[in-house]
Amino acid sequence: MEAINLHFTGDFHAITAAHNLLSAMIDNHIYWGNELGIDSRRVSWRRAIDMNDRSLREITSSLGGVSNGYPRTDGFDITVASEVMAVFCLATDLADLEARLARMIVAETRDRKPVTCGDIGAAPAMTVLLKDAFDPNLVQTLEGNPAFVHGGPFANIAHGCNSVSATTAALALADVVVTEAGFGADLGAEKFFDIKCRKAGLVPDVAVIVATIRALKMHGGVGKADLSKENVVALETGFANLERHIENTRKFGVPVVVCVNKFVTDTDAEVEAVIRLTREKCGADAILCTHWGEGSKGTEALAYKVAELLDAPREAEFTHLYPSEMGLFQKVETIAKTLYRASAVTADASVKKRLAEFEAAGYGHVPVCIAKTQSSFSADANAKNAPEGHVLPIREVHLAAGAEFVVAVCGDIMRMPGLPKVPSALHIKLDANGMIEGLS
Amino acid sequence: MEAINLHFTGDFHAITAAHNLLSAMIDNHIYWGNELGIDSRRVSWRRAIDMNDRSLREITSSLGGVSNGYPRTDGFDITVASEVMAVFCLATDLADLEARLARMIVAETRDRKPVTCGDIGAAPAMTVLLKDAFDPNLVQTLEGNPAFVHGGPFANIAHGCNSVSATTAALALADVVVTEAGFGADLGAEKFFDIKCRKAGLVPDVAVIVATIRALKMHGGVGKADLSKENVVALETGFANLERHIENTRKFGVPVVVCVNKFVTDTDAEVEAVIRLTREKCGADAILCTHWGEGSKGTEALAYKVAELLDAPREAEFTHLYPSEMGLFQKVETIAKTLYRASAVTADASVKKRLAEFEAAGYGHVPVCIAKTQSSFSADANAKNAPEGHVLPIREVHLAAGAEFVVAVCGDIMRMPGLPKVPSALHIKLDANGMIEGLS
Amino acid sequence: MEAINLHFTGDFHAITAAHNLLSAMIDNHIYWGNELGIDSRRVSWRRAIDMNDRSLREITSSLGGVSNGYPRTDGFDITVASEVMAVFCLATDLADLEARLARMIVAETRDRKPVTCGDIGAAPAMTVLLKDAFDPNLVQTLEGNPAFVHGGPFANIAHGCNSVSATTAALALADVVVTEAGFGADLGAEKFFDIKCRKAGLVPDVAVIVATIRALKMHGGVGKADLSKENVVALETGFANLERHIENTRKFGVPVVVCVNKFVTDTDAEVEAVIRLTREKCGADAILCTHWGEGSKGTEALAYKVAELLDAPREAEFTHLYPSEMGLFQKVETIAKTLYRASAVTADASVKKRLAEFEAAGYGHVPVCIAKTQSSFSADANAKNAPEGHVLPIREVHLAAGAEFVVAVCGDIMRMPGLPKVPSALHIKLDANGMIEGLS
Amino acid sequence: MEAINLHFTGDFHAITAAHNLLSAMIDNHIYWGNELGIDSRRVSWRRAIDMNDRSLREITSSLGGVSNGYPRTDGFDITVASEVMAVFCLATDLADLEARLARMIVAETRDRKPVTCGDIGAAPAMTVLLKDAFDPNLVQTLEGNPAFVHGGPFANIAHGCNSVSATTAALALADVVVTEAGFGADLGAEKFFDIKCRKAGLVPDVAVIVATIRALKMHGGVGKADLSKENVVALETGFANLERHIENTRKFGVPVVVCVNKFVTDTDAEVEAVIRLTREKCGADAILCTHWGEGSKGTEALAYKVAELLDAPREAEFTHLYPSEMGLFQKVETIAKTLYRASAVTADASVKKRLAEFEAAGYGHVPVCIAKTQSSFSADANAKNAPEGHVLPIREVHLAAGAEFVVAVCGDIMRMPGLPKVPSALHIKLDANGMIEGLS
Repeated sequence: MEAINLHFTGDFHAITAAHNLLSAMIDNHIYWGNELGIDSRRVSWRRAIDMNDRSLREITSSLGGVSNGYPRTDGFDITVASEVMAVFCLATDLADLEARLARMIVAETRDRKPVTCGDIGAAPAMTVLLKDAFDPNLVQTLEGNPAFVHGGPFANIAHGCNSVSATTAALALADVVVTEAGFGADLGAEKFFDIKCRKAGLVPDVAVIVATIRALKMHGGVGKADLSKENVVALETGFANLERHIENTRKFGVPVVVCVNKFVTDTDAEVEAVIRLTREKCGADAILCTHWGEGSKGTEALAYKVAELLDAPREAEFTHLYPSEMGLFQKVETIAKTLYRASAVTADASVKKRLAEFEAAGYGHVPVCIAKTQSSFSADANAKNAPEGHVLPIREVHLAAGAEFVVAVCGDIMRMPGLPKVPSALHIKLDANGMIEGLS
Repeated sequence: MEAINLHFTGDFHAITAAHNLLSAMIDNHIYWGNELGIDSRRVSWRRAIDMNDRSLREITSSLGGVSNGYPRTDGFDITVASEVMAVFCLATDLADLEARLARMIVAETRDRKPVTCGDIGAAPAMTVLLKDAFDPNLVQTLEGNPAFVHGGPFANIAHGCNSVSATTAALALADVVVTEAGFGADLGAEKFFDIKCRKAGLVPDVAVIVATIRALKMHGGVGKADLSKENVVALETGFANLERHIENTRKFGVPVVVCVNKFVTDTDAEVEAVIRLTREKCGADAILCTHWGEGSKGTEALAYKVAELLDAPREAEFTHLYPSEMGLFQKVETIAKTLYRASAVTADASVKKRLAEFEAAGYGHVPVCIAKTQSSFSADANAKNAPEGHVLPIREVHLAAGAEFVVAVCGDIMRMPGLPKVPSALHIKLDANGMIEGLS
Repeated sequence: MEAINLHFTGDFHAITAAHNLLSAMIDNHIYWGNELGIDSRRVSWRRAIDMNDRSLREITSSLGGVSNGYPRTDGFDITVASEVMAVFCLATDLADLEARLARMIVAETRDRKPVTCGDIGAAPAMTVLLKDAFDPNLVQTLEGNPAFVHGGPFANIAHGCNSVSATTAALALADVVVTEAGFGADLGAEKFFDIKCRKAGLVPDVAVIVATIRALKMHGGVGKADLSKENVVALETGFANLERHIENTRKFGVPVVVCVNKFVTDTDAEVEAVIRLTREKCGADAILCTHWGEGSKGTEALAYKVAELLDAPREAEFTHLYPSEMGLFQKVETIAKTLYRASAVTADASVKKRLAEFEAAGYGHVPVCIAKTQSSFSADANAKNAPEGHVLPIREVHLAAGAEFVVAVCGDIMRMPGLPKVPSALHIKLDANGMIEGLS
Repeated sequence: MEAINLHFTGDFHAITAAHNLLSAMIDNHIYWGNELGIDSRRVSWRRAIDMNDRSLREITSSLGGVSNGYPRTDGFDITVASEVMAVFCLATDLADLEARLARMIVAETRDRKPVTCGDIGAAPAMTVLLKDAFDPNLVQTLEGNPAFVHGGPFANIAHGCNSVSATTAALALADVVVTEAGFGADLGAEKFFDIKCRKAGLVPDVAVIVATIRALKMHGGVGKADLSKENVVALETGFANLERHIENTRKFGVPVVVCVNKFVTDTDAEVEAVIRLTREKCGADAILCTHWGEGSKGTEALAYKVAELLDAPREAEFTHLYPSEMGLFQKVETIAKTLYRASAVTADASVKKRLAEFEAAGYGHVPVCIAKTQSSFSADANAKNAPEGHVLPIREVHLAAGAEFVVAVCGDIMRMPGLPKVPSALHIKLDANGMIEGLS
């Protein structure tokens, strides 16, 4: 347990090292004559560190004199936000990994030609650094159940799913494989279906939507301080949020079951209400699960339900939300209107121009990866429940040419978190017996 | 082999992470109200990365607006130059490690009071991050001989010896333990004797001084291009360099044997000359060793000689060059005059004032760690062979309160290397069989 | 002529010096103990220079070590964009000047209390620096007519009118005073009426709207390359732009006459058309003026027309567009809807919050000063002619507490221009007789 | 009086503007394609401002994105330290001014070729900006005596004398011209003789060395607090300082008279002592002067003495301390050994290499301009009185190719002062009658 939260098998360190090797080689190239003609103002490849460190979000590097290189604006992203992480999680084998790394765009020349990791020559050495990390990590739960823990692209800025290599390894080893797609289903599930499944050719059979009564009450208008009090009325209001997630998931042709993740403050009346509403409004089953307290025993009913759905004849074919050949802006529009129920997508002329450039450069066929708040279907974190008719503004777009998607940033999205006033590190220590304390 | 050059057991990653956790916590402390009153201009704790990256030598951090903190001048050292690495290598157990980390000075307040890692509260969590790395790594050579590979403080700026924990573990397991102290013996051996042995209570029995005929010819005036040609005359001139290393080492009360590390271009006449001169001028044995080509077989004669010296009655007691209670500046003078044969040590008034401050703050008893070129006994890398009467200028001094030594920087010493025009990374790759190529 | 374009009477130098004295005193205050508790991240007072220098738009200052102060993000505005310039142009006398300077907000504390120029103690010395510059400069035209040339706040970011002291001096000396309000009348005239006249208690009697046939054809859809060709149809289309300016100006209760500023490429048919349309659509007179070629003789007809209007009974009272007591956001809305014909004004929550803070701090009564492109009635420079129904987005707001207005920045507004590829300076020189060449 | 301390005739503003025009044009050149191949790390032309502002000593400029140019390390010098000021003061006419400006070196290319102001094309426009300022300013003293006040190169870093144009104008208008050369005579007089007189072909007839009893007592070991107490013994000790200045000045072949600048605390015994010692030890006259209290009346005796010396037959020819053809390092040595009585001049290999580069580039014949503390004959400000046998270290050297001298920086020399804790500006204001108060 602690190992996973500390260095684990060193995968993140390896990804950080590969990322920063490329960073160092870019500046080194500029330093030694800059044969590729890189415009030092247009180096888009930042640096990475596996630490929440707001001080490194924006820096000026190469200060201190001629021998330290050409000063420029730079910054660090948290390792999970690195395109290396996204590539690592989407690559099918080491050769594919190296090829994708080589395609990553790191800078532009003065006349705005892209410069890639391959141009710098860093991809082979990066692959060597990632070689061992690329093997999926098989761990066991407290009950001895096997699980792969491998890769973790930042859902804020990337696709947020674990590695294709872990999922395909699991599929080769087990009859049923459960995987997780983080954030709200409008983000996590959509990216899993439209990016990971599309790239890896995966066909999911069932979707388990995990809901909590507290979250639904919050969507129903209850303040944080009052979430522990029973409030079936608010729950009924907030159910609209879950209802939309169910509708959305079904649009991919995947059958749905809801897992009600029980908290100690949830009351029977509230649990009943969720089960009832799921049945009545959506024609689906919601199953109470108590795994937090009871382990796998607490999800037995859910497991049988999933097995039942797996055996049932499939009602619809799995489908992506949009075809690869659709235009990039139209892809964002499709997601926004179909899943978020936005009335429109807006973007400055400069953003639209950038998308057109990506298409002209041959990247029109890649999926889009939307960076949006997970707190709302809209781009406004305060618009709870099931908002409609809102406008989704695209603030900026980035091409992840190695990961093969275009990131559409909608709102203020953080690539590097900061520490809170009292960081957890202040509570982590070795106890008198040399055991780790304070690591949750 | 490759593993040691790549991530190995992750020790360097752990040290980097511990170092940067402290960095992030310092800036975070300032950000959230700065209760300790840290003067942001006087944060001396830099950041660390295990990468040769000249662009990060000097940066301005916390740019980009209010939420990114207070801009300040910062920079990255290479991980091996981190005081965490020095502390890691000198600590006797985890409790000592944590205590030393806590004592490290990271900043000063506006009125110049020191702020420590302990004040920031980072030491316990750093110790947790270092917990597994702190166990020595036992590896085997190509012939299956056991070896500990553990820790590597930058000899440029720190004491340059492997960990105390590895050495004491080895001493508990074997009759004879061989350890290495890098750079010239004026630096490596001196620091091993005066810092590591002093701190860890070690008493070395024999010193093996490794010499190459090429280096001695270079000290004798031969240019790089001509080192492969036989030149006994130059060798005899350059022998003065080896002679002084032998004299120096004996000043610590340790018997000496010379290992002549054979190169393919060395001629018999040259080998003969070294052996003869060592005998005639120093009364010591020089043994030809061919381990580069032949493995341990090539050092058999040396091994027997070492064993013989171990069994012989000891002629002198092991002694440090200076007592702990000597003044800091006097310690530098003692080393400079006794080993480097300098006529004087100079330092600006500000440097002398700083040393006086260290003494007033209770750090007068710690050893000094000299940062000097390894290419000469003097501070001038071009002064070959055995220069005398030169002046050693102390440019700046740093207190490593956790490692418990004062670094005296003499000349331009690099804490962060840069990559060459053609970095090795350009040659490292996976071959068609997935094996690593190009890693030497 | 050249003098006005060079150092003239040194007014701009004096304003620059006063501005930068305050800048230096702010950083000096922080350096010497920071008694006021200024948050170095929240210093809003930038530096000023009377030079187009894009390199100084954003800088990091106070680098290079402890004795150079606390590093922070800073930048230079062009002198005319300094609030000192705006204050200088609105002050009624030296005492008022000093009082206004003292009220300027330069920074905030950590807990976001405003820090003023008065808190820093710089206002008296700044006033001394501005003392001589504050006297209006009386110059003569090539024909010997008197003119005051005094002050020039950047219309991009400030109110764009010459000094109150010059205007009131002129009013005391002449029967009729002509003053200029730059940019489009939607910006220049509005600010003259709502800011300068309001503050100085001025009541304008007649407005002369200067129009060019080329500009109207451009608003009618003609490209730059074709502006020299006769095109009455386009002119008729583009007349809608002039028509709106006439309508807008009349909303202030001021009678209007149009000056058609003749270019050599204008044709008789085009001139006829403008005169006819002005008469037919607006019931006003447009007078052909040829002063560019013929001097004051070319505006004789216009002058008589103005005199006629001055003598005519006034049809409406002069009025401001909005009362001082209206809310700040509502003031922007009023201007946007009434003059620009926008359908709505948008602003982020943070902008609205800032406006509410200004009102809470007692600045609700000041006028608003809109920073918007002069190329369109809307915020989109490409929306020519007379657009309606557009949305005016407020990007940010600043309080000029000394000038006593709130700047509402709508779109990308530059506070510091850059030089073009071939700067005019490359053509300016002394000729063989020591006369200046190349200064237009 | 006040005018001279404020904007005066705007000369400094003009010099600042000319300086910064060049700065802006350099960065603009790099921005627009950088045809000259300037290495942005090697731009040596800093910016200038006429303000004590430590925050601007070192900055990073061109931050904030692509459209603001290429980030680089930059900084501001105080205007008087600008090479434009030095050039302005040494130029003989406008054509010479323009030619010298054009020769100033502003940067280097990647392969270290110099780039000049002329290459940038800025010299003609700079000359236009300086045109009016170049005319000497004739002012009158409180008693109505004429004086030229024109130019003021920073004695810290430049030659510290007023303009050649003012001096030659004065020589054309009066029988006797008195000029001032600031700092100690080891700096001010030496530079006047060796730089200004050499360049302008001036031959000085008499040197008046101004001494104060307080300063001599300080050189004799009296602390600041005790300077007001009579102390003839200390005065006699400290007289060695004055004695050396007299000796030094005579080495240029110029007769000497001493002006004793009376302070109210000086006692008769002290005055007597100085007069006596000057006579006995140096064979020269010291004249008590009371001009501070009594105006020109107080220097009448001195004036007659000077007139007497002017009429006396000249004992020696005026001579420079070294010939133009001497090597640059040797020039520094000559000054250091002859005037400062140093035993040696030291310089790093890099400094010597730089001097050799200047000589190779054809600048061997120019004079050297030593930047050294004015508080001592040595580079150590604390070495009072008449130190001998000290070592003068050259820290760095700069070529002022327009001014035509090489600056040798010995010690920490400031190019931009900072404000004190209580800046004078805090006391400067307009009084109730609009008169300036607090400007001394």
